[in-house]
Amino acid sequence: MKQNAADAITRDGKVLILAYDHGLEHGPVDFEPNPETADPERIFDLATHDAVTALAVQKGLAEAYYPDYAEDVTLLLKLNGTSNLWMGEPDTAVNCSVEYAAELGADAVGFTLYGGSNHEVELAEEFREAHEDAREHDLGVVMWSYPRGQGVKDDTSPETIAYAARQGLELGADVAKVKYPGSAEGMAEAVGMAGPTKVIMSGGSKTDDRKFLETVESAIDAGAKGLAVGRNVFQRENPIEILDALEDVIFEERSATEALRRRDSE
Amino acid sequence: MKQNAADAITRDGKVLILAYDHGLEHGPVDFEPNPETADPERIFDLATHDAVTALAVQKGLAEAYYPDYAEDVTLLLKLNGTSNLWMGEPDTAVNCSVEYAAELGADAVGFTLYGGSNHEVELAEEFREAHEDAREHDLGVVMWSYPRGQGVKDDTSPETIAYAARQGLELGADVAKVKYPGSAEGMAEAVGMAGPTKVIMSGGSKTDDRKFLETVESAIDAGAKGLAVGRNVFQRENPIEILDALEDVIFEERSATEALRRRDSE
Amino acid sequence: MKQNAADAITRDGKVLILAYDHGLEHGPVDFEPNPETADPERIFDLATHDAVTALAVQKGLAEAYYPDYAEDVTLLLKLNGTSNLWMGEPDTAVNCSVEYAAELGADAVGFTLYGGSNHEVELAEEFREAHEDAREHDLGVVMWSYPRGQGVKDDTSPETIAYAARQGLELGADVAKVKYPGSAEGMAEAVGMAGPTKVIMSGGSKTDDRKFLETVESAIDAGAKGLAVGRNVFQRENPIEILDALEDVIFEERSATEALRRRDSE
Amino acid sequence: MKQNAADAITRDGKVLILAYDHGLEHGPVDFEPNPETADPERIFDLATHDAVTALAVQKGLAEAYYPDYAEDVTLLLKLNGTSNLWMGEPDTAVNCSVEYAAELGADAVGFTLYGGSNHEVELAEEFREAHEDAREHDLGVVMWSYPRGQGVKDDTSPETIAYAARQGLELGADVAKVKYPGSAEGMAEAVGMAGPTKVIMSGGSKTDDRKFLETVESAIDAGAKGLAVGRNVFQRENPIEILDALEDVIFEERSATEALRRRDSE
Amino acid sequence: MKQNAADAITRDGKVLILAYDHGLEHGPVDFEPNPETADPERIFDLATHDAVTALAVQKGLAEAYYPDYAEDVTLLLKLNGTSNLWMGEPDTAVNCSVEYAAELGADAVGFTLYGGSNHEVELAEEFREAHEDAREHDLGVVMWSYPRGQGVKDDTSPETIAYAARQGLELGADVAKVKYPGSAEGMAEAVGMAGPTKVIMSGGSKTDDRKFLETVESAIDAGAKGLAVGRNVFQRENPIEILDALEDVIFEERSATEALRRRDSE
Repeated sequence: MKQNAADAITRDGKVLILAYDHGLEHGPVDFEPNPETADPERIFDLATHDAVTALAVQKGLAEAYYPDYAEDVTLLLKLNGTSNLWMGEPDTAVNCSVEYAAELGADAVGFTLYGGSNHEVELAEEFREAHEDAREHDLGVVMWSYPRGQGVKDDTSPETIAYAARQGLELGADVAKVKYPGSAEGMAEAVGMAGPTKVIMSGGSKTDDRKFLETVESAIDAGAKGLAVGRNVFQRENPIEILDALEDVIFEERSATEALRRRDSE
Repeated sequence: MKQNAADAITRDGKVLILAYDHGLEHGPVDFEPNPETADPERIFDLATHDAVTALAVQKGLAEAYYPDYAEDVTLLLKLNGTSNLWMGEPDTAVNCSVEYAAELGADAVGFTLYGGSNHEVELAEEFREAHEDAREHDLGVVMWSYPRGQGVKDDTSPETIAYAARQGLELGADVAKVKYPGSAEGMAEAVGMAGPTKVIMSGGSKTDDRKFLETVESAIDAGAKGLAVGRNVFQRENPIEILDALEDVIFEERSATEALRRRDSE
Repeated sequence: MKQNAADAITRDGKVLILAYDHGLEHGPVDFEPNPETADPERIFDLATHDAVTALAVQKGLAEAYYPDYAEDVTLLLKLNGTSNLWMGEPDTAVNCSVEYAAELGADAVGFTLYGGSNHEVELAEEFREAHEDAREHDLGVVMWSYPRGQGVKDDTSPETIAYAARQGLELGADVAKVKYPGSAEGMAEAVGMAGPTKVIMSGGSKTDDRKFLETVESAIDAGAKGLAVGRNVFQRENPIEILDALEDVIFEERSATEALRRRDSE
Repeated sequence: MKQNAADAITRDGKVLILAYDHGLEHGPVDFEPNPETADPERIFDLATHDAVTALAVQKGLAEAYYPDYAEDVTLLLKLNGTSNLWMGEPDTAVNCSVEYAAELGADAVGFTLYGGSNHEVELAEEFREAHEDAREHDLGVVMWSYPRGQGVKDDTSPETIAYAARQGLELGADVAKVKYPGSAEGMAEAVGMAGPTKVIMSGGSKTDDRKFLETVESAIDAGAKGLAVGRNVFQRENPIEILDALEDVIFEERSATEALRRRDSE
Repeated sequence: MKQNAADAITRDGKVLILAYDHGLEHGPVDFEPNPETADPERIFDLATHDAVTALAVQKGLAEAYYPDYAEDVTLLLKLNGTSNLWMGEPDTAVNCSVEYAAELGADAVGFTLYGGSNHEVELAEEFREAHEDAREHDLGVVMWSYPRGQGVKDDTSPETIAYAARQGLELGADVAKVKYPGSAEGMAEAVGMAGPTKVIMSGGSKTDDRKFLETVESAIDAGAKGLAVGRNVFQRENPIEILDALEDVIFEERSATEALRRRDSE
């Protein structure tokens, strides 16, 4: 973690990443609840919302759409990723070099590390190269720190998530994206392990508004610096409304209840 | 996908790739129905037909024949490929660098990705390098997006083909060549997933004229931007006639029936 | 081993490395005895103690904290390391290049070699590159020489430790960090094998003050040039006191008994 | 295949390669029938015969002997090769870079591809690099195209040899060396598959004069452009005589019978 | 093999390499017969003996001791090597680059090839790189040609040793170090296979003076150009005496009997 390296993707020290790599990672099935969400243009439009501090996409989407949004959206280029078509220990491909990410206008790069996978060593070495290249290009570094694989029994236990957050700090991530460990205490533990590396929670599968916002509220209260969210925004009927509410909870540190009340009173 | 990157291999936004890498991928057996088709010169001659927007061949054929056709044929250098002599999970060799493809006069490069193969991660990383090198040389990028391997139960199901098309978009292909998913709806779904990446269907094994043209017509109606065809052209007795008909269906958006009627009335 | 290459991390030819890579290697569990030790700032503060000749941390901690301590702490950048989340033969990832270590202000680099692991050959080749890069940047080289894996029955036997020390010398380490082989004789044997490469003992798990200091004393008497210590300092209630005592034993060559008496009389 | 790239190793479009890599590939056992043949100098002397258009050796022999023969012998540096001491799927080591081959004075390079081996993909990628480097140095490229391995049931069937010849063309070889497929028809099929890539037959184990020359005659009649021969020349009592006869059959297109008659009448 | 490339490590065309990499390859156990031999300084001193044409050590020893001996000792930097702590098919690590060897003042480099190992292909490719780098730096190349592994039934049979010597020649070694094949005939066969590559015998385990010198004598008579020796010198009580005797046998071509008589009469 380097002082101020992630400033371009933060606002008042907080982070709200709109993540949209589901087309690669999960395939079209993630767009079925709302077929229009398959259209990246809709997501790039959403990313112009004030609450969103960065949009995370793979190289192909950045190439195709970012030229039209360069002024209104902050680009976090997700460097690695893979389909779920194949089988085996967690692994992932580096689909974009940092040089090319910079050329596309990215302000930061994202990288998944599957701690606990039999491929962890190789992934960590790929992360090293990405990290040092990012430093050369003055890009922030966000680690998707996701323990997973033969060695990991429970990938959302507080112990696992705390370790994941610490890996972010030790290896040099400016922001570590981790799964919600089930409780505010667990999130506080993870935050405590990460030092100045900003811990943000991963949005996960879609849940109802209140439950989702309350989880985010508890994470923020526990010291998390924000959220990376995909399906919980774009699979909703009214994604703008949930972004408004998230803005309240994350940047204004309002409670979920208050955020919902403000929304309903509009 | 980058705006206009594939212009050199399109005509009015449509694509008709004459593909001729069967000698490497399948071996001499593909030339048995019509032994003269083993002679690359015949295919380079066919590629001068107005309907053909690019000829896809391996490096060796480009070296040997392209110097004589450089003015009349657009070259799509197929970068990877392998024989079917060996056994194991789908994999393929990078037989040509982008630098050398450019030197040979290519306007675009082709690359096979076997999504779902246990080698997908490695292939995707080779694709990354080819893709970024192609951007440097201003060459279009065509992905043969062919899910195949241990993890893929049905390699022409609509779900698989839609995922394959999306991989093309996410990873940066300007054109994604996919198998026909069995129906116009399936093809429309794939097209919907690919955003501005042009989806084209793969010609596959030889079928009769009507059936073949009707399939192409349904693909075009579903939003596909064209076709990559090999055996369904060169294994025919009169490949010129079928190219005329394909020109009608793809570029003039005539029906298969009308295209056949025009041919028969000549 | 190169003449004077490690001078920056020695004092009167002796070495006391404060090692703090437990967050990566073992995870948060190592901070449980004293939760405050999870905070790297506490350890950087400790590293300003006169007794400490270098602080060994991973890249991420150096990035985040070293800028504030550059004048008061000597940085030994630990280049490789991995989590204990995964399973299999001992292996470890190179998380930092020597170039980047130099940029961060390191005076020396650290590298783990698991002799006896089925990955030894690969690790040794990674060490070669790190070693020669370090020579170019005039950085000292410390090898964590830890035989471990399928081929190693007893990783603290005198034979194993002597071999580990010799690997340090043969491969070019300026300092070889080895486990305590259970006796002063064993340590003397290891020292005898290492020629001018400085052998230092690894602190290991926390033990009581007297036992710990007596082991250090016996190592120093046997010719070891110092200690690399983590948990036996930072897991203590009063880490300053133990550092004072270590300074007595290592640099003043006082006995453990005398060091403890001096402490108690203060 | 590139126009004229192999001119330096041809004469009137024909090729007679004296191959002498048996010391590496098979070991001393190949020299037992005639122990003097272990001496490379004898073979370099033979290679000055007018019939020989190139001498194929490994790097070590070229280093040691070629300086004395540079004016009288055309050097074809065999880039890869391996001993038969080890076990496993066919594989081979790249023992010489193209750069170094050029430095040694080579006019062409040779490369073995084991199509059908589980290592085919890797070998093909090594061939790519050698091929493109050879183009940069204006060296001809000869492929030893030898399908072999788990996937290949009959490595001299006409189908296999035709595929092997086609691989030479598709991948860019100027000359493809294949085994004799047992009949003139088989050889004609292979030649037909290779387009402008010159197909030459491999000499194989030693046979009697008539049988050997008749096979060469049948290959030439079938369109082969020559021969690569080792044991069938150097294991003979009078290798000069057989080279004279081969010159008749290959370059003068005389029959084996006539060539033998001319020899016997001298 | 390149004309004169190994001149710096020969005297009148003969070679006597004092080899001292046992600390890495075998560990401290090799120093037990004579504990003082663990001290590299003793061996560097021995290497100043007139009989010794080069001292072979790993990088670490060269770094530490060679600066003090640069004027009196010729350095042969052994580039690869590994411990015997791990298990599996013979393999070895490249511990030093040729560039760094040159920087350390080496006149030649040494490299082990385990022909017959399942890692032979990889080792041969590493040898290629070392060999070509050595040519650029005008360093001689000595191959430790040691067939070993799953494919090798008898690693000292005359057939195996002859093959090993030939590998040295074919791959470009200036000197090939092989085991003694049990007889003068076997050694003569090996020498005959190696052409101008100098064959030297490996000293092996310690034997009595007469037996050792007679073996060396028989090797020299058979055409070997010398010896690489470690334990048979340094494990002796009076290593100087045996070096005197070896000088007689190797450089003066005296018989073992005469050499022993001369020694005893001093």
